Amino acid sequence: MSPSAHASSTVNPIQWRDDRLVLLDQRLLPGAEIHVDCATSAAVVTAIRDMVVRGAPAIGIAGAYGMVLAAREAWQRVGPAWRSDWQDAVTALREARPTAINLAWAVDRLVLAAQTLDGDPGLPLLVLAQQLHAEDLAANHRMGQLGAALIAPGSTVMTHCNAGALATAGHGTALGVIRDAHAAGRIERVFATETRPWLQGARLTSWELSREGIPVTLITDGSAAHVMRAEAVAWLIVGADRVAANGDVANKIGTYGLAIAARAHGARVMVVAPLSTFDPATPDGSAIHIEERAGEEITTIGGQRYAPAGVTAYNPVFDVTPAALIDVLVTEAGVIERPDRARIAALQAAR
Amino acid sequence: MSPSAHASSTVNPIQWRDDRLVLLDQRLLPGAEIHVDCATSAAVVTAIRDMVVRGAPAIGIAGAYGMVLAAREAWQRVGPAWRSDWQDAVTALREARPTAINLAWAVDRLVLAAQTLDGDPGLPLLVLAQQLHAEDLAANHRMGQLGAALIAPGSTVMTHCNAGALATAGHGTALGVIRDAHAAGRIERVFATETRPWLQGARLTSWELSREGIPVTLITDGSAAHVMRAEAVAWLIVGADRVAANGDVANKIGTYGLAIAARAHGARVMVVAPLSTFDPATPDGSAIHIEERAGEEITTIGGQRYAPAGVTAYNPVFDVTPAALIDVLVTEAGVIERPDRARIAALQAAR
Repeated sequence: MSPSAHASSTVNPIQWRDDRLVLLDQRLLPGAEIHVDCATSAAVVTAIRDMVVRGAPAIGIAGAYGMVLAAREAWQRVGPAWRSDWQDAVTALREARPTAINLAWAVDRLVLAAQTLDGDPGLPLLVLAQQLHAEDLAANHRMGQLGAALIAPGSTVMTHCNAGALATAGHGTALGVIRDAHAAGRIERVFATETRPWLQGARLTSWELSREGIPVTLITDGSAAHVMRAEAVAWLIVGADRVAANGDVANKIGTYGLAIAARAHGARVMVVAPLSTFDPATPDGSAIHIEERAGEEITTIGGQRYAPAGVTAYNPVFDVTPAALIDVLVTEAGVIERPDRARIAALQAAR
Repeated sequence: MSPSAHASSTVNPIQWRDDRLVLLDQRLLPGAEIHVDCATSAAVVTAIRDMVVRGAPAIGIAGAYGMVLAAREAWQRVGPAWRSDWQDAVTALREARPTAINLAWAVDRLVLAAQTLDGDPGLPLLVLAQQLHAEDLAANHRMGQLGAALIAPGSTVMTHCNAGALATAGHGTALGVIRDAHAAGRIERVFATETRPWLQGARLTSWELSREGIPVTLITDGSAAHVMRAEAVAWLIVGADRVAANGDVANKIGTYGLAIAARAHGARVMVVAPLSTFDPATPDGSAIHIEERAGEEITTIGGQRYAPAGVTAYNPVFDVTPAALIDVLVTEAGVIERPDRARIAALQAAR
């Protein structure tokens, strides 16, 4: 592939500046580009819970920096006894959101590293957080190349939610593949589902793609099956919040229905996820805790109420797509076709 | 079935009062119950096009009353030569919206009747329009009983968009079945998809059902497949805007994806549609003109813009569900299991 096929994102959702975590507030995009400064680990917990930052890999990185802040706070309070002092902050960070495994993964990486530290933990943990940050970006670029190579020139693809630069350290998982495939002339058009209730597709994906000149067409979630049939969509390309040991994938609510529709139309399903998203401790999708959020996220939009007062709404944030509906899992360590327990275990063992 | 199993709707979307068509403005529900007076046929065209009134049977009835107004206007202008004078108004009414066949069906019924009239056409056409109105209500009650009988006691069902009293002369097609089945103890819970972009599920269906005490849970369109799996949904029950000769069904965008998901989960698919929705002149779904509306209906909600300026949006209003995905077609003349060309023709011939 030519060097020009390496696309770069101009979006930078997570930065460490002046001893603070600086997050691009994704709730306000694309109307306003406002950054939120998090100077404490508690502020990071709030930012994750309130979705200032979202997207499984991005939440993991934000959590890692939150751990750095938690360690500094504990050291300032109690000095060498900091490791017993920071436990509450560690728990709060790990549980800020339940479904994306990357958050627990990043927190646990820093807990493990902390066990062998002497003295002030601030700098060594910051170095580790920055390493995770850089690794995620590198993984995205690697996955982008691997996934793009699977797409035939001139393809029409569909993506759901936002698995882009905004959801990661940059470049993106699903959108990293789309960026690289577009740069290589393999993608002619991207259909982006708006992704109710948070409208990540309308607000974030169409913003990321259109500012880079990638032809994107926004559709409602409900029109996806019609579009797959009418527009000969070749690939459904999505990210993941957690990949179980058997290859079942938790991702944004709606992914499962899209995968069923894709199978019915001969569109292939590509899940793009770094190994930090894989959870060997989760045997299959039935063991994944699916976050539910307030019904008001459905009954009201932009502060305006649409459903009558008192109507019950059910708002699961993720769903589980069974491995049998997934054609390709793209990781930074390689591509798994028709993923199952054995193939996933083999890839992880080879690391 | 006991008398108590006959449910009645308290919603009255279409009325003829003081020589005017009075429509409940469905764009403002449930926030406000405002009625729009249409004193001219042009006002009826505008009301249909701008979706003051929506739902295939309701559009048909409104169109019939629009024809009465058109005939009166022509008679007042030119007297006995009124039939050549009203042609433009007839065309405007027939084409006010393209997909629902009931509109063309009602317009043609009045054109046919007009051929044999002498003198002022106002009263005889009004009598015919009121007859169509009453027939639709009676058909809904008949379909409600026929459909309800197919549902096992204690079932969980799902519906899409609004095929309720608001979409018809009253009672509803899909919601008529749900009303009667609930009254007979056959329905425990209804999941209503919000139905982007117009949110008919959030605004209208949840309003219709909750005011009658039928347990309704609102969900996003994208969560339907997850809900079908998690909540053991027994039936997907929807209306139709046009039924082709082979049983393919045009209905609100999203129906097709829901039908694919229903089939994948063993949920049965029931389409409830009066014979006025059947179009023998349309051989199959590929011949149905699918209305497209402005992309702004997706990029903005309630006047607030969510997608970045300049992003393309594709907004088909209907999709086609192939007959092969439909388990039961319920009409006022009887139930057709596994609908196909022969079974539909047989039912129509028996009328």
